[in-house]
Amino acid sequence: MKDLHQYIEDNKDRMLSELFDLLRIPSISALSAHKEDMYKTANAIKVKLETIGVDHCEVMETGGHPAVFAKKTIDTTLPTVLVYGHYDVQPVDPLELWESDPFEPFIKATKNHPEGAIIGRGANDDKGQMYMHILAFEYLVKSGNLPCNVKFLIEGEEEIGSANLDNFIEKNKDILSCDVVLVSDTTMAGKETPSVMTGLRGLSYFEIKLSGPNRDLHSGHFGGAVINPCMAMCEMLSSLHDVNGKINIPHFYDGVIEVSPQERAEMAKVPFDPIRYNENVGVDYVNGEKGYSTRERCTIRPALDINGIWGGYIGEGAKTILPACAHAKVSIRLVPGQDPHRVNEMFINHIKQIAPKGTKVEISATQGAFPYVTPITDSAYVAASKALEMVYGKPAVPVRGGGSIGVVPMFEKFLGKKTILLGFGLDTDAIHSPNENYSLGQFFRGVEVIPYFYKFYAELKK
Amino acid sequence: MKDLHQYIEDNKDRMLSELFDLLRIPSISALSAHKEDMYKTANAIKVKLETIGVDHCEVMETGGHPAVFAKKTIDTTLPTVLVYGHYDVQPVDPLELWESDPFEPFIKATKNHPEGAIIGRGANDDKGQMYMHILAFEYLVKSGNLPCNVKFLIEGEEEIGSANLDNFIEKNKDILSCDVVLVSDTTMAGKETPSVMTGLRGLSYFEIKLSGPNRDLHSGHFGGAVINPCMAMCEMLSSLHDVNGKINIPHFYDGVIEVSPQERAEMAKVPFDPIRYNENVGVDYVNGEKGYSTRERCTIRPALDINGIWGGYIGEGAKTILPACAHAKVSIRLVPGQDPHRVNEMFINHIKQIAPKGTKVEISATQGAFPYVTPITDSAYVAASKALEMVYGKPAVPVRGGGSIGVVPMFEKFLGKKTILLGFGLDTDAIHSPNENYSLGQFFRGVEVIPYFYKFYAELKK
Repeated sequence: MKDLHQYIEDNKDRMLSELFDLLRIPSISALSAHKEDMYKTANAIKVKLETIGVDHCEVMETGGHPAVFAKKTIDTTLPTVLVYGHYDVQPVDPLELWESDPFEPFIKATKNHPEGAIIGRGANDDKGQMYMHILAFEYLVKSGNLPCNVKFLIEGEEEIGSANLDNFIEKNKDILSCDVVLVSDTTMAGKETPSVMTGLRGLSYFEIKLSGPNRDLHSGHFGGAVINPCMAMCEMLSSLHDVNGKINIPHFYDGVIEVSPQERAEMAKVPFDPIRYNENVGVDYVNGEKGYSTRERCTIRPALDINGIWGGYIGEGAKTILPACAHAKVSIRLVPGQDPHRVNEMFINHIKQIAPKGTKVEISATQGAFPYVTPITDSAYVAASKALEMVYGKPAVPVRGGGSIGVVPMFEKFLGKKTILLGFGLDTDAIHSPNENYSLGQFFRGVEVIPYFYKFYAELKK
Repeated sequence: MKDLHQYIEDNKDRMLSELFDLLRIPSISALSAHKEDMYKTANAIKVKLETIGVDHCEVMETGGHPAVFAKKTIDTTLPTVLVYGHYDVQPVDPLELWESDPFEPFIKATKNHPEGAIIGRGANDDKGQMYMHILAFEYLVKSGNLPCNVKFLIEGEEEIGSANLDNFIEKNKDILSCDVVLVSDTTMAGKETPSVMTGLRGLSYFEIKLSGPNRDLHSGHFGGAVINPCMAMCEMLSSLHDVNGKINIPHFYDGVIEVSPQERAEMAKVPFDPIRYNENVGVDYVNGEKGYSTRERCTIRPALDINGIWGGYIGEGAKTILPACAHAKVSIRLVPGQDPHRVNEMFINHIKQIAPKGTKVEISATQGAFPYVTPITDSAYVAASKALEMVYGKPAVPVRGGGSIGVVPMFEKFLGKKTILLGFGLDTDAIHSPNENYSLGQFFRGVEVIPYFYKFYAELKK
């Protein structure tokens, strides 16, 4: 693939122009007004894939926004890579904070990216990262270098939770069958620190209502004598961490797979600047579970957060009431070895048990995602790592992500296959925010890394 | 005053109709949108007082919502009673829990009040109770039975702490001069247990904002590593009580005047039915400071309550954020021996001290009221007790109230006079709550008791 780098150099303008056409379609999955834009985007991707030589491509119904499926089979004895991506984007508000129209992409040289960055909604997440795969595939077919079979699944509901994909994958597991799933929808440790994301946290999400008296009571007449549900909620929620920042629910950590000291040492090699980290989030001090670093606390360790809390009078001025009830939304990020269904049950039972006498608790689990991990011994991990080294000139490091991508554990569940999270985003890219951007350097290096992944993966699977 | 009872019987419908007109004006002092309604209500009261024969009446500026002042002097050698009441009402949310429009009052027969009760915001607190005084005065003037001089001070900021009344009373202490202050803005021990309230708790009220990161963060990417302000708020607030239900702030109880065992024994004689109490508030269990009875906990002991709490995502569904900040409204009821200014300072310092590193706290005291107590040997107390016995047919008992009426300690401070708390509310009246109501029996008995108070008080002061 000696001609790969030159091919990209020769086609840069055309490649960007094609991506820009895609970015101009406002495919916001959360807003029903954009329903037609979803089909428009899916069809544009289909046309492109057909032009560059897939055997078969169709826009498939999912029950929600459609998904694009395509495949090219060159030899059934060779391994098959399933590329997953999404063409839907986040809403754009607050619109006034954008430098220009979010759907009129342009290139701008910035402090972080003197070579230029693409500014626009979806520049990175995930149209930009997804399109690298289409361009890499184009090169491989055109140059005759395609070393394996490829399938594409480009969906339109990732930003709204991929709620229909569970059924879709289960129903279509035969056509989606593959040896590995390849996804570029995450970040890299740094522009000069190539990395592969080897894990994601899972998620349990709860809504709790704690009721006390049958109405808001006068706090003068009843205060001190009747249990205050807001105070009881605070007592319950604050009891969920112990003094060491550990989650204080019996048996919560049962089954958690501790990361080995060797792996922790490996992860600690990724540069981390605590001052820059604090500046970015706007705090002067961070804290969490004792015995773990900041990055470990938000990747390899579970975390329990209050996402929202409310009760009593929250309007202007003073109202002297003892509120009738209190509400909270609580999420728990899970790590390998934890099952959201088991955690849901454990948490619900625990909350019911600690709710004080004189109150009534209603609690439900509203979301669940399994944690996910790929061993660094997996041949696809090795291939990804080698491919990054080819282009970046240094070995890739394995990193864990703290978020959850619901579809990744689904591939494992229904297809029985691992996913390689080969993301080229950077944490300064403002995804989901105004002025989303994507470094041109990362974009073109991504287009260059992907063909090497196929090459090394096919070789390793021989 | 043989004709008093008949006068009330003959005028019931008209009396209620006048009160209903007043209840229809949404005079919510906490909400700035209702500013005009405050003037509208004050003017309606002025018109009524002028119609029934006061010498002078005016709507006076206070710096906040206006107050109505009126007087009738029949003989300067006779004692003067200053009637205090308020025309402002509490906000109405949660609106969905009201049976009907809070400002469209109606009569409904209930289990507690088979004779009927007025349902509506202000039915009891304090438009209903205040209007009893206007109707009693109407009778006394019309029948020629007025035995003393009367002044009225009907203010519009009681529900938001009477913050401007302090200055107002001090500035107008000459025109407000009197022998005793008479207030109906409290409850009676029971429908068949006439009582006079001899004490009130004081009040400190705080608004707290606890800030963490500079924006709502992705709870996957940051959860576990960055301090969650909602969780920190829960931890701070839950630390404010110890395991015995005592308020856990250093020196908080310094100076608190303990009620003697004899007084506690006397108070314990007032009937108290724990099953009925729990049924009324809709709980199966109550709890509070160890070593005190339910009634003592909400009258002679301080109490700290969360009146409202909010932070993060409180809409429909799940949003996985680590919120940027949390808010709470906290009240502390105070007892004799405590000074709200000292408690404000102590609480603010304590909260600042316990706010965890990595968060920023903003806290302000928004209200303050001194606690209050009247001796049962006071001639106005004796007159009130006799007046109640005339109508209820049994001796009145002295009780302590748990609420705060900020203005009562101000009358003592600036006018040097005691206040008689001759309340006719019942603890089932849902004041400050949806479906506030006021028994027709209590309303009309109140109109009947008040003229006897004037009579006995004038006789005792001869």
